[in-house]
Amino acid sequence: MRMFAVIPAGGSGTRLWPASRSARPKFLLPFPGPRSMLQSTVDRLEGMVDPSDTFILTGQQHAVSVGRQLPDVPEDNIVVEPEARGSGPAIGFGAMLIAMRDPEAIMGSFAADHFIADADTFRRAVTAAADVATRGYLVTIGIQPSRPETGYGYIRLGDTIDNHNGLRSFVVEEFKEKPDLETATAYVESGRYLWNASIFVWRAKALIESMRELIPDVFEILKEIADAWDTERRDRVMQERWPALRDVTIDHGIMEHARNVAVVPADCGWTDLGDWNSLGEVLAEQDQDNLAIRAEHIAEDTRSTLVFGNNRFVATLGVENLVIVDTDDVILVCDRSRAQDVRRIVQRLQRDGRDGLT
Amino acid sequence: MRMFAVIPAGGSGTRLWPASRSARPKFLLPFPGPRSMLQSTVDRLEGMVDPSDTFILTGQQHAVSVGRQLPDVPEDNIVVEPEARGSGPAIGFGAMLIAMRDPEAIMGSFAADHFIADADTFRRAVTAAADVATRGYLVTIGIQPSRPETGYGYIRLGDTIDNHNGLRSFVVEEFKEKPDLETATAYVESGRYLWNASIFVWRAKALIESMRELIPDVFEILKEIADAWDTERRDRVMQERWPALRDVTIDHGIMEHARNVAVVPADCGWTDLGDWNSLGEVLAEQDQDNLAIRAEHIAEDTRSTLVFGNNRFVATLGVENLVIVDTDDVILVCDRSRAQDVRRIVQRLQRDGRDGLT
Repeated sequence: MRMFAVIPAGGSGTRLWPASRSARPKFLLPFPGPRSMLQSTVDRLEGMVDPSDTFILTGQQHAVSVGRQLPDVPEDNIVVEPEARGSGPAIGFGAMLIAMRDPEAIMGSFAADHFIADADTFRRAVTAAADVATRGYLVTIGIQPSRPETGYGYIRLGDTIDNHNGLRSFVVEEFKEKPDLETATAYVESGRYLWNASIFVWRAKALIESMRELIPDVFEILKEIADAWDTERRDRVMQERWPALRDVTIDHGIMEHARNVAVVPADCGWTDLGDWNSLGEVLAEQDQDNLAIRAEHIAEDTRSTLVFGNNRFVATLGVENLVIVDTDDVILVCDRSRAQDVRRIVQRLQRDGRDGLT
Repeated sequence: MRMFAVIPAGGSGTRLWPASRSARPKFLLPFPGPRSMLQSTVDRLEGMVDPSDTFILTGQQHAVSVGRQLPDVPEDNIVVEPEARGSGPAIGFGAMLIAMRDPEAIMGSFAADHFIADADTFRRAVTAAADVATRGYLVTIGIQPSRPETGYGYIRLGDTIDNHNGLRSFVVEEFKEKPDLETATAYVESGRYLWNASIFVWRAKALIESMRELIPDVFEILKEIADAWDTERRDRVMQERWPALRDVTIDHGIMEHARNVAVVPADCGWTDLGDWNSLGEVLAEQDQDNLAIRAEHIAEDTRSTLVFGNNRFVATLGVENLVIVDTDDVILVCDRSRAQDVRRIVQRLQRDGRDGLT
């Protein structure tokens, strides 16, 4: 089965500051390395989706980097958004471009800055989801939760739809916003909830129909732009109409309200790599002292520490549970338990007018 | 009274790595800043010792830096040692050069890399010591101990010699090597011991006589070099004879064996600034969170931490009791309680052949 892909490549990832900056967001960075997160997202689809069938939607300030990181993706497939309007318009417009190529196309939408340890399991889940999608469902890949994480949204499983070579698909009963710890614990214990990883598979035209119904204002503007796309009016219409779009996520705009939503559970080692602590966990998996080192480094009596270096030598002595990040102009030293609060530093720098550092 | 000074400027200070390097030792660095420790040593003597009466003895690899840091010290007063031979030959040779200028000269010898918070008290003690020195004593300034420090040598007080405008001088009964904690505690509680800060005042010719008696081999060679100093043979004799000198400290060679040793106690906020922790204490004196910051810095929930920066911005979040040092090529993150062990990292790098980093 021929499959298309849309990869919305936006977001700043301030919690991975100072490596991640407004001018150099997380998806362009080599987490966990050596390839960037965006490159790894494309690599992970190799053999399933051809680069010429892959569409990237990104901001003006990142277009050059995206183009250089993905030389096999045709220039025409890299859509530059005049202004960021969230995942709804980005993925929706990708679906329209794909439908113009193949009216019956099955497509997946994949975040550009998530990490997946087990690509094989992920690919089997996407294949199963594509099977369900041919029946008209909007399908999401749900992640088997490993802990009561309060930073993710959850999906409640409904009835079984089918079995696909050992993977089952389910009707989605409900999407749940990020819960508190008590609720998250109950979700995980019930066995009826999955993490929402914002991975979607559907027929392009099924999504377009849902947009027409659920977010008609967005649909109308995207349709105008799509109609002008293969004409000489492309750039002018894009510049004029895109900024008029409403900022809406695909979850809020479509998935939470559509009736034909399905999910395929996958235990594929997914994480959104939302902060330094989670990057440390991904990198440290095999180290007995729980060290995660990406630097020239010497460690004396050092445990559970992430060092994300640049080109300087890093020495640590008698420390534990630290995140140490070295960049050309900024060094961060942070307790791992406080990794989520790194954005507070970014906010403070912005308040202080130190935008060059953010 | 005209007074001369000798400043032996050697030593590597590996415990202040990575700021301090073999090519850029502690005395050349701005601890605590903004002037270097060597510059501060000369500054502290202003009005007591003229720069033209100040002699620096240093190694070949530091001669250029010393000359640039001290433009007021005449070139002829900066003695470049072909090889390091310890404080005995360095101070002894300084005494010979001074005696050639003024046979009755009173001189002080001052370490180039110690910190003194209260320069006024220090200067009053040196003045009192000079008074005692005119009576033929080899005088040392002893520091009132503030804690049972095991990293310093101690001096046991004997009988009072005299009173000098409120400061007393004493005969020295004995020099004690670095003690264990129990011994150090007994020393401090007895009230009869001072820290040995390696600050000396004497008549140049009194030291020379002691050298002739106690370290005659060193005396003979230094005399040969001094006799050639004001001739065209200076450089040749220095190169040939200096390496033949025995490596001996002024304490072991002279002070511990001489009979005419006196001490003037001073409570002048002295520290040898032997590691990052003690630099942190000097810098943090006024800060309620015990922060010692020498960097562009943003601190969230950070306590008792020393940041010694370079030209990068440093952010800390949720950490305490750390030493963070940024240099062009190396970053150190160390628990303050382990500051003494920084030299272990330097040793390991040397074993690994990474001399460029040490």
